[in-house]
Amino acid sequence: MSSLKDRFTDYVHQLQDRICRELEELDGKEAFREDNWQREGGGGGRTRVIEKGEVIEKGGVNVSAVHGELPDPIKQHFQVDQGWFYATGLSLVLHPRSPMIPTVHANYRFFELYEDAEQSRVADRWFGGGADLTPYYLWEEDAVHFHRTFKQACDRHGKELYPRFKRECDDYFYNHHRGEARGIGGLFFDYLRGDSDHTDEDWFDFTTENGEAFLDAWRPIARRRVEEPYGEKERYWQEVRRGRYVEFNLIHDRGTLFGLKTKGRIESIFMSLPPRVRWDYDYRPEPGSREEELLERLRNPVDWI
Amino acid sequence: MSSLKDRFTDYVHQLQDRICRELEELDGKEAFREDNWQREGGGGGRTRVIEKGEVIEKGGVNVSAVHGELPDPIKQHFQVDQGWFYATGLSLVLHPRSPMIPTVHANYRFFELYEDAEQSRVADRWFGGGADLTPYYLWEEDAVHFHRTFKQACDRHGKELYPRFKRECDDYFYNHHRGEARGIGGLFFDYLRGDSDHTDEDWFDFTTENGEAFLDAWRPIARRRVEEPYGEKERYWQEVRRGRYVEFNLIHDRGTLFGLKTKGRIESIFMSLPPRVRWDYDYRPEPGSREEELLERLRNPVDWI
Repeated sequence: MSSLKDRFTDYVHQLQDRICRELEELDGKEAFREDNWQREGGGGGRTRVIEKGEVIEKGGVNVSAVHGELPDPIKQHFQVDQGWFYATGLSLVLHPRSPMIPTVHANYRFFELYEDAEQSRVADRWFGGGADLTPYYLWEEDAVHFHRTFKQACDRHGKELYPRFKRECDDYFYNHHRGEARGIGGLFFDYLRGDSDHTDEDWFDFTTENGEAFLDAWRPIARRRVEEPYGEKERYWQEVRRGRYVEFNLIHDRGTLFGLKTKGRIESIFMSLPPRVRWDYDYRPEPGSREEELLERLRNPVDWI
Repeated sequence: MSSLKDRFTDYVHQLQDRICRELEELDGKEAFREDNWQREGGGGGRTRVIEKGEVIEKGGVNVSAVHGELPDPIKQHFQVDQGWFYATGLSLVLHPRSPMIPTVHANYRFFELYEDAEQSRVADRWFGGGADLTPYYLWEEDAVHFHRTFKQACDRHGKELYPRFKRECDDYFYNHHRGEARGIGGLFFDYLRGDSDHTDEDWFDFTTENGEAFLDAWRPIARRRVEEPYGEKERYWQEVRRGRYVEFNLIHDRGTLFGLKTKGRIESIFMSLPPRVRWDYDYRPEPGSREEELLERLRNPVDWI
């Protein structure tokens, strides 16, 4: 039986293929373009981006599998003098054209640390990932569906997992400088290591089951809301809110900042940024409007289930 | 004679009035709106923003004068256990509508540190500031004019100042993650303290003379380029480049990050963000185009004079 790392690497590549195929079918107009890139220190990635589609205005579904000596910022982070690593994962962000369809982000990853360049002595390993939803207009049933889908993926591995990772998601995707959440949350998990409750194999199953849940969580919402009419006003609001997405990713997102520090491939990292964005000075939605209602819901975490 | 701090505070308020008046005249359509705000720990500011103008699509010209106990992040920065401060300054960013007119930023500030809450024992004081230009299409004569105007403001205080602060500007306004400058530079100076070569009074004169030079440096360029025709293609490029401006401000700009850390007024800090922005995946201008020519000039600092 091949190693966790090889199996997870295979998995994310397969998942990328599947998600891209399904998203192209959903979009009906545009296809993903692919960029293969190499990392100087070892490994590389397969970046796939779709732009100016009918349903997806901009989206990226990337995988990478990189390895080598730990870059200096990671050594500092883990407080080690030397070390080698292998990291693989899938990361996706979809910015729909219609403001009625929420933006979605998901990420599934595996990290392994070694004492030697040959990767023969494993020092540590863990899984991480999650998914979160950023609506511009809120339908409660969409939020419930999204959370419920991932709760099901969690529950089979322990009833305590959904509440725990749901809370971590609320904490993480928060624009502290605005006092509001990026969106209505989902799951966030990291450093999932084998222990007395869960083996590494359990976490492998848990993480891949989350990967499987992604399309079920988002696609029905997109299909439902693509029918909703919208105009210039809704589009304006979408562009203002996308500004908050940019703020989160460039100011707070650890993944993005880590990618910049370790000199990751800029265009692959920044595929997450929305296509068109607007910053008005002190923009405030009309009192009592659906736009204001959304803001109210983003002030404090909601128990959606 | 009143203190440096009172005189500089008066100066930046006066300068704000003057610059706003002249910019409204230049714009010919929109006026600045004013927001007065108070800081919880002491002091406040006068934020002025113009939006959807004829010439200026979005611009802010802000002054603030804040004081009180040092916020914790500043204590850590200066490695002191306690201290009180007074800080005042003017900060402006103008995003023109036409991609033929460069975006401009300028800032003039004064900081004083005290050993006591009554501000009777001054521990340190300094001036800081500068101005830099971010063109979307480059006319060499504009870059030369901008630099020459500030060089003249510098030269009266020492021939060594322009080259020194020009270099600091090139170093500072650099998007390291892109390997390109934000624009064609200008001046950047900080921690200007009285010493054997320059008294505090000299630096006061130097900083205010820079403030005086601002309109002379930018306005003739705006007047000249507002006549240049442009279309959708040029506007597209402007929006892509504005993305780089956002990247700099949210990832690298110390002033912005400092403002966020010390819980400054978000809308006043983010007035610097451009009105409409675009992120395309891996956008590349056509080989041999004016757009590509600009990128080439931003790779390495240019001696414009």
